[in-house]
Amino acid sequence: MIEQDVLSKINASIEKKLDYWLGQLARLCAQPSISAQNNGIAECADLVATMLQEQGYRAEVMLSDGYPVVYGEGDGRSAKTLLFYLHYDVQPPEPLELWDSPPFTMTRKGDVFYARGISDDKGHIIARLAALDAVKEALGELPCNVKFIIEGEEEVGSPNMPAFVEKHQQKLAADACIWEFGGVDYDGNPAQSLGMRGICYVELAVQTASQDAHSGLGGSIFPNAAWRLVWALNLLKDENEQIRIPGFYDDVLPPSARDLELLQKLPDHASNLKAMYALDGFLGGVTGGLDLKRQAVFEPTCTICGLTSGYQGAGTKTVLPAKATAKVDFRLVPDQRPEDIVAKLRAYLDTQGFGDVSVTLLGGGRPAKVDPDHPFVQLALATAVAVYGRESLVEPIIGGSGPNYPFIHVLGLPVISAGIGYPGSQVHAPNENMRLDYFIQGIQHTAQIIEGFARL
Amino acid sequence: MIEQDVLSKINASIEKKLDYWLGQLARLCAQPSISAQNNGIAECADLVATMLQEQGYRAEVMLSDGYPVVYGEGDGRSAKTLLFYLHYDVQPPEPLELWDSPPFTMTRKGDVFYARGISDDKGHIIARLAALDAVKEALGELPCNVKFIIEGEEEVGSPNMPAFVEKHQQKLAADACIWEFGGVDYDGNPAQSLGMRGICYVELAVQTASQDAHSGLGGSIFPNAAWRLVWALNLLKDENEQIRIPGFYDDVLPPSARDLELLQKLPDHASNLKAMYALDGFLGGVTGGLDLKRQAVFEPTCTICGLTSGYQGAGTKTVLPAKATAKVDFRLVPDQRPEDIVAKLRAYLDTQGFGDVSVTLLGGGRPAKVDPDHPFVQLALATAVAVYGRESLVEPIIGGSGPNYPFIHVLGLPVISAGIGYPGSQVHAPNENMRLDYFIQGIQHTAQIIEGFARL
Repeated sequence: MIEQDVLSKINASIEKKLDYWLGQLARLCAQPSISAQNNGIAECADLVATMLQEQGYRAEVMLSDGYPVVYGEGDGRSAKTLLFYLHYDVQPPEPLELWDSPPFTMTRKGDVFYARGISDDKGHIIARLAALDAVKEALGELPCNVKFIIEGEEEVGSPNMPAFVEKHQQKLAADACIWEFGGVDYDGNPAQSLGMRGICYVELAVQTASQDAHSGLGGSIFPNAAWRLVWALNLLKDENEQIRIPGFYDDVLPPSARDLELLQKLPDHASNLKAMYALDGFLGGVTGGLDLKRQAVFEPTCTICGLTSGYQGAGTKTVLPAKATAKVDFRLVPDQRPEDIVAKLRAYLDTQGFGDVSVTLLGGGRPAKVDPDHPFVQLALATAVAVYGRESLVEPIIGGSGPNYPFIHVLGLPVISAGIGYPGSQVHAPNENMRLDYFIQGIQHTAQIIEGFARL
Repeated sequence: MIEQDVLSKINASIEKKLDYWLGQLARLCAQPSISAQNNGIAECADLVATMLQEQGYRAEVMLSDGYPVVYGEGDGRSAKTLLFYLHYDVQPPEPLELWDSPPFTMTRKGDVFYARGISDDKGHIIARLAALDAVKEALGELPCNVKFIIEGEEEVGSPNMPAFVEKHQQKLAADACIWEFGGVDYDGNPAQSLGMRGICYVELAVQTASQDAHSGLGGSIFPNAAWRLVWALNLLKDENEQIRIPGFYDDVLPPSARDLELLQKLPDHASNLKAMYALDGFLGGVTGGLDLKRQAVFEPTCTICGLTSGYQGAGTKTVLPAKATAKVDFRLVPDQRPEDIVAKLRAYLDTQGFGDVSVTLLGGGRPAKVDPDHPFVQLALATAVAVYGRESLVEPIIGGSGPNYPFIHVLGLPVISAGIGYPGSQVHAPNENMRLDYFIQGIQHTAQIIEGFARL
């Protein structure tokens, strides 16, 4: 257990420097870093490296096969090393008209702060730095070595992180890892995530002619790209949510008894979700409870994220589109693999007569989860009780995705979550925000994990 | 047959006043009248009424449920009345950067004149006035009564023309009608169109939630608007181009033997179309000839004109869309009716479990065609031989649509086309233009129809 004196010093330090860290957060949010649009990426990587250096860390902007990765390190008392995985990129702010304040200007309203990326993930970068600073101030030095790996492609599926981790295994060697997110649930309970689904994000595209045609001229005789796309998509999933790609479910592992035990303890968010999204009901007719919780994270998905073809303005335009495109996102569960899914998708479209529909893999990552009984996981849970005054809700796997596979299975690290998020954060949506109380608690929790890790 | 003396006088008059009419055309083209943007509409209606009055016609700007309609009339020697249907509105000029001259300044390059609307349809307005003037000068007075109905919503689907004609049947009573377009084909042969397909343009829209969700959160449990739309669209037409709405084909009349005989005489544009649009082939495996010609105009269609949902930018966004929309354009053949098709579509979606997909009728008009053997049609064909020195290509029906139904079936008129257009006119596109030789021939042809009509 942490000494009371150390705890008091840590918390006092966090409180004392709160305005400083909010200022650093505003500085970071002011730098756009939209990976999907390659907007501000290099500038933001440089800024993050500078901010690490300002805190006394050695930092460098490293090349990857994609956008630069910021690497940082600092020395501590023990031989043990704690690795922080974070990302400096953000989702596109569009649709801009739904924002109540400029997305790249941190705006305070009461004790809520708004900006694109303020929760996902810039607030977490700042929270890690603030926690380390507080622990260092309380103990006189860092209690362990620390490493940072802060990438710029998380929001586009971290396409280069697996290869980057593979290539830099030695440099990234550590004993445990704190992931880029964390926080509380709808009721303010701390949440602990032990795994993530994988992802296979593809673009389906069709071109049927060199130019659009008048629909009166071509409607009866020209192939229509939008129709080809609709028919191809219809092959992928039926109205009962069954994915129709042959072999798609081959590698799906059912949840373990321990997984289900953890799911069972989680609160039922059915009514919250229905209210927040104004849903009539859930897919498959589930209404809540273990059925909903299991379906939400242990089922793989096939989600159409976007459709585009032809005329999309007001009123009418009598046009026959030459091009059509869909963005499709498959969430994968252990042990599905994105490259396997893409191959099966391609073969399926070919056998069904849709060789004209191209499939481009835009992002892929494997699913992975850690042992709920690992001591580092137990540390994260125990310190959460100390900070939040309640037990953590432990999710054996979450619905989202991230490049945790190489950290868990290549670097061999236990990976836990801790942070500043809450369900109203509006991540990926307009008016993304951060609550001040959760920001402070996220810093406190991170600090206690750092302090406790050195004594494990 | 027209007397040689009269013909000579008519042609001499046209030649003598050519510069005057080109000046009038420049004056009319200088007034923007973009119905899709409500730009210059009232001003152009006033100008057209003024120009009719300057030629000695009684003219007024009449209200409709939409933009104003210019009505004009003039008295002639016989009791018979010829009606001219025209429109003063034009397509938007955008994209402006692709114009080689200002779209609302008539610009001459050699014997080609450029302006938005110069062919569609302001050149036709001027050609009708020039033809009437030449006949009047040759004969000393008009040989028949004339009426003009010049609307301002043709380019947005003439939504109010059927009701307007219905309401003003007495005022518009006539014995025959000359339509707003006409001209020659790729090889310079005069083209005669005897009918148009109808149209039923709908928007399908689905909203499954009050806001978009993260695809990792909702992918397994939230309904997805894009999927709902894809499945609903898939119900409408199969991969063999069969429209699956029950009863869709109920009112379809097959082409008559006379229709097929006319189609058989038309040139085969298969290779032109394949080259222009870089097509691999035509729908249904037809390769050209009568099969292609028949399918192109005598089959009803279901064309997706546009698809929009979720993220459509570059790269990836892991979003589950709350809204999705499709623009769908049905081209109808005799005796299909748009209101009937919408009702069948609505009922079908309901019975298939897609009551959540809304259907909004954005534009509708019935198909109509005239008897190829009507004496007025024969007059148009005979006079075309006199002017162009070749037989007309007679299309029993064309693939496009327009408000000819109320003229043919409410006013009970034979409707023929005659005019100044050619396939290079670039109507609806940048650099819309008119060739001087086709302008003169269009005036000559119109004049001979007017003269002959009085003697029918």
